[in-house]
Amino acid sequence: MRRSIGIDVGGTKVLGVVADETGAIVDEARAVTPVHDGPAMVATMAEVANELRRRHPEVEAVGGGVAGLVTLDGIVRFSPNLPYVIELPVGPMLAEAIGLPVRLENDATCALWGEHERGAAAGVADVALVALGTGVGGALVLGGNLVRGANGFAGEVGHMVVDLGGIPCVCGRQGCWERYASGTGLGRMGREMAEAGRAPRLVELAGGDPLLVRGEHVTLAASEGDAQALAVMDVLADWVAIGLVNLCQVLDVARFVIGGGLAAAGDVLVEPVRRAYEERAVASEHRPPVEIVAAAMGEYAGAVGAALLALD
Amino acid sequence: MRRSIGIDVGGTKVLGVVADETGAIVDEARAVTPVHDGPAMVATMAEVANELRRRHPEVEAVGGGVAGLVTLDGIVRFSPNLPYVIELPVGPMLAEAIGLPVRLENDATCALWGEHERGAAAGVADVALVALGTGVGGALVLGGNLVRGANGFAGEVGHMVVDLGGIPCVCGRQGCWERYASGTGLGRMGREMAEAGRAPRLVELAGGDPLLVRGEHVTLAASEGDAQALAVMDVLADWVAIGLVNLCQVLDVARFVIGGGLAAAGDVLVEPVRRAYEERAVASEHRPPVEIVAAAMGEYAGAVGAALLALD
Repeated sequence: MRRSIGIDVGGTKVLGVVADETGAIVDEARAVTPVHDGPAMVATMAEVANELRRRHPEVEAVGGGVAGLVTLDGIVRFSPNLPYVIELPVGPMLAEAIGLPVRLENDATCALWGEHERGAAAGVADVALVALGTGVGGALVLGGNLVRGANGFAGEVGHMVVDLGGIPCVCGRQGCWERYASGTGLGRMGREMAEAGRAPRLVELAGGDPLLVRGEHVTLAASEGDAQALAVMDVLADWVAIGLVNLCQVLDVARFVIGGGLAAAGDVLVEPVRRAYEERAVASEHRPPVEIVAAAMGEYAGAVGAALLALD
Repeated sequence: MRRSIGIDVGGTKVLGVVADETGAIVDEARAVTPVHDGPAMVATMAEVANELRRRHPEVEAVGGGVAGLVTLDGIVRFSPNLPYVIELPVGPMLAEAIGLPVRLENDATCALWGEHERGAAAGVADVALVALGTGVGGALVLGGNLVRGANGFAGEVGHMVVDLGGIPCVCGRQGCWERYASGTGLGRMGREMAEAGRAPRLVELAGGDPLLVRGEHVTLAASEGDAQALAVMDVLADWVAIGLVNLCQVLDVARFVIGGGLAAAGDVLVEPVRRAYEERAVASEHRPPVEIVAAAMGEYAGAVGAALLALD
């Protein structure tokens, strides 16, 4: 059976896997993501890949996933969360360093492909992944085909404006979806409630300082059943639903897969998102219900998807 | 050369064409759209088709385009602008009335396919049509393929929420894009300026009553160079651009084709939309520019596209 390497670059770690052509993981390796230096990031990707290749010389190709605008020929043009990686030919550099064919894609694209082949998107022809983390990324499979767009940039759903004139965004505009439907948004909502003196458990989890409340404190308190945290989750879920309904209007997907760091919250997030979606859906009496599920492959989705795309 | 019939149902007229397999129009026929009765609408479509078939007995199939949610098997589930057409199997009824294979699609889908085969979307693999009329419809071609979605409902871009809590929409929500980026929105903006006493030419065109200003008065005055009307067009164009930038984030299209009734305004609309788009685009220094063009086939795009889809 054919095998390949997949390398997923996250904000903190570089995760590499060897997978077979069904997406089964055969081996893995990790490294810390170098910050502040694009070529060092590529070098780390190459080290992880070469380590795996030494152990599995039969691998045929390498796939990579990096956040941001990744062109069809593997150039990372801009990466909001890796701002030092700019106009960098990561794919070609990696191919030269490894000596194998390399396919580079956006990290959410890889994650969706992994989930589509072996996870929460399996068997669904029209499905979108929405990665809720620091920001909001995304990827699309429509009619069974991965959608890459004219430049490879499809699925940048976080910068849909949903609230014109709303909260200023890192992109220079206002009211982008990711200002609300993200870990960043959840942390802000939690802090607002904590500063108003209405969330003692959140303040406690943040070590006593309302200004230090983060998204993970909210999801943790919500999973404990804390009423204030659950109320904040409902607000987050409503924002998530606003964007999902927009995407369903445009794409008519049958399923949304919620990935990214917030997906770890599981039902504490997904259940209120489903409720909010039902309330906000358009003409829902004339459509089959849309499924909303959490990603199933955890941190491995991107690396496995990258490995499978490399064999394409 | 193979030939087929295409029937486009608009709010006022049913337009039928006979086209060859290249999309060249061979003949046409028209009728008035019956209002307040779904089966009568189907009967009129059948009359137009049968009239064309008598003159061109060689036609192999019939394509139809109707506004609204049209399923993959030709059922019109809901049509906001033809509210009496609801859960009606238009495709199967038409096939029975004509005795030829029928393919029914959303009208914007047909229009995009027409423009893609012979018009303003020709040769572009990733392109969206945005139909700006009373409401806002849309359709997508991605990777060279027509996107239909899980149910046939893809491209309902008018109900993207862009201004949460904004103007109430016919769909029951608030702040949908079509409340602003449409002929309806343009008329409202024109009336607001006219009622404020700042648009004498618009009032004149409306017969002296500011409350009777409509979108077409604004586009006419703008094409004459009226400064107030041009200012209203700039506001409309900004709203159009807000939604187009959202769509480009999600879809990464290379071109937008502006169709629908407002497209008749031509450069008076398209030029300010291009300017507004440039101002609102995200990370534009890292992307090739997106083309924004007016539809090229006028009222025939939908019927020709339907005819071509019927031969698929």
